[in-house]
Amino acid sequence: MQLEFLGTGAGSPSKQRNVSSVALRLLEERNAIWLFDVGEATQHQILYTTIRPRKIEKIFITHLHGDHIFGLPGLLSSRSFQGGDEPLTIYGPVGIKRFVQTALQVSESRLSYPLHFVEIEHEGEIFKDDSFTVYAKRLDHKITCFGYRVVEHDHPGELQVDKLREMHIPSGPVYGQLKAGKTVKLDDGRVLNGQDFIGPAQPGRIVAILGDTRQTKNAVWLARNADVLVHESTFGKDEAKLAHNYYHSTSKQAAEIAKEAGAKRLLLNHISARYAGKAAYQLAYQVRKLFPNTRVVNDLDVFDIPFKKQGERDGK
Amino acid sequence: MQLEFLGTGAGSPSKQRNVSSVALRLLEERNAIWLFDVGEATQHQILYTTIRPRKIEKIFITHLHGDHIFGLPGLLSSRSFQGGDEPLTIYGPVGIKRFVQTALQVSESRLSYPLHFVEIEHEGEIFKDDSFTVYAKRLDHKITCFGYRVVEHDHPGELQVDKLREMHIPSGPVYGQLKAGKTVKLDDGRVLNGQDFIGPAQPGRIVAILGDTRQTKNAVWLARNADVLVHESTFGKDEAKLAHNYYHSTSKQAAEIAKEAGAKRLLLNHISARYAGKAAYQLAYQVRKLFPNTRVVNDLDVFDIPFKKQGERDGK
Ligand SMILES: [Zn+2]
Ligand SMILES: [Zn+2]
Repeated sequence: MQLEFLGTGAGSPSKQRNVSSVALRLLEERNAIWLFDVGEATQHQILYTTIRPRKIEKIFITHLHGDHIFGLPGLLSSRSFQGGDEPLTIYGPVGIKRFVQTALQVSESRLSYPLHFVEIEHEGEIFKDDSFTVYAKRLDHKITCFGYRVVEHDHPGELQVDKLREMHIPSGPVYGQLKAGKTVKLDDGRVLNGQDFIGPAQPGRIVAILGDTRQTKNAVWLARNADVLVHESTFGKDEAKLAHNYYHSTSKQAAEIAKEAGAKRLLLNHISARYAGKAAYQLAYQVRKLFPNTRVVNDLDVFDIPFKKQGERDGK
Repeated sequence: MQLEFLGTGAGSPSKQRNVSSVALRLLEERNAIWLFDVGEATQHQILYTTIRPRKIEKIFITHLHGDHIFGLPGLLSSRSFQGGDEPLTIYGPVGIKRFVQTALQVSESRLSYPLHFVEIEHEGEIFKDDSFTVYAKRLDHKITCFGYRVVEHDHPGELQVDKLREMHIPSGPVYGQLKAGKTVKLDDGRVLNGQDFIGPAQPGRIVAILGDTRQTKNAVWLARNADVLVHESTFGKDEAKLAHNYYHSTSKQAAEIAKEAGAKRLLLNHISARYAGKAAYQLAYQVRKLFPNTRVVNDLDVFDIPFKKQGERDGK
């Protein structure tokens, strides 16, 4: 599981930063890529990564401002052109379907795969399967905007085969029953409880990816105990008034959210072009006293999201 | 007057070529830029030129395929964001207005300038003012597609002031009347015909910019005596069958059009990604026996379109 940033700028593209898009790489987990927002030229950015458009399984749109959606029609068309045939689902505010369908109709684009839409009208769980649950909550932006919380389900513990071998229990169907947690009576009369032979569960990871927003309580909810929080920082620490007026956040406000939520790592994106070069990094340095594990991300940055280590799992 | 190519590829963007867009730079002529097609990330390409979006006065769309229009909403929004306030007019097939308006509505983009649409339903003259006339003709593509012929009006000859001075005619209102071509009687009784004191007219330039098309007679009409013909060459000389099946042209077909039309220069664009590096240049080399002044264009290439020289004007 990795986060790959395809566009980290605000509003308009610049030579340094493209408009918004983040990929959540779930290749080991489900052989899929999930995208969050698709600003114009996201497909161009993808040319500089190892992402194959056909692997994009889901797209989550935070809000309908152009810098977050204008790359969708082109990406969807190219995915088709490159032979993608697996279904793709787009989640987002009401209106995303009309935008995409109009673009595809007018351009007479016929996609080679089924395209589904989930227009979010109620907050809460918007997707769940065997391995992941995704939640959406409203943020505080000029137009309807959602933040997303992606929760990987815990991985059940492994069967402790070494322990069974030490006890001279031969492999066979018994192993499967024990792995399923059942109690088993062996031919020699011994009774074994599967629970005693299963290692500790591996807690799933939590990633919170937010859209454009003022500082809001819902961001804390979304980022609760998250391994990574991706939060906008359109403005620097001392620009709270500007941030408020434009429905955006400062780096300090983002750090406060990360701290209150107990997140492990804060990645700042949606950086205004007014912060170029070193000035952009300052956005993170400014707030490290408040939340040390803070980084400003750049286009094409990749961040691994590792499983929690044994110590962390045991609840330090 | 120059042509600046912003995207010269076919179908999908590649690292080498972006999707379609050409700028006709008319800065000396009218302090304006005209764009022909706006594929996705045209505004990104513009960042690498001296073009200022606020100078874009007209946009001509050849057809509604995504690789020719998906950059429009972003470009229009950025032009507004950068403070453009002059009106902008978009010409193109029926449907272009619906596409643009839906994108702007859904994204709640309010432009800082008046946006006009001219949806072309009849071939012929689509624009005329004091200095330019633009014609549109249907091409032969899978969907409705237009080619454009931009005709600069002839510049009237200059008043030959040296000649008047030699004849000891003092400057004054008489000069204005002579420049207007009138016959004037001087106080000393001499009668002068303005026509005798006006230098040769400077013929205007003609530029033909075509969209995606099979070889078609209308292309000859559009390119008649053009200083430059921009013609697609999605395929190489020997791929006429493929070109026909996909509603495109070969380099040879483009050269035949240029020759028959008596164009002075042929620029080949809309190059398929199958022709990379040297293979792309071959598209031009292949046809130079047929039409010597042929070039394959690359992204960000600029071509000057000079006035005809004296010898050419005298109608060799
Ligand atoms: Zn934004
Ligand atoms: Zn095309």
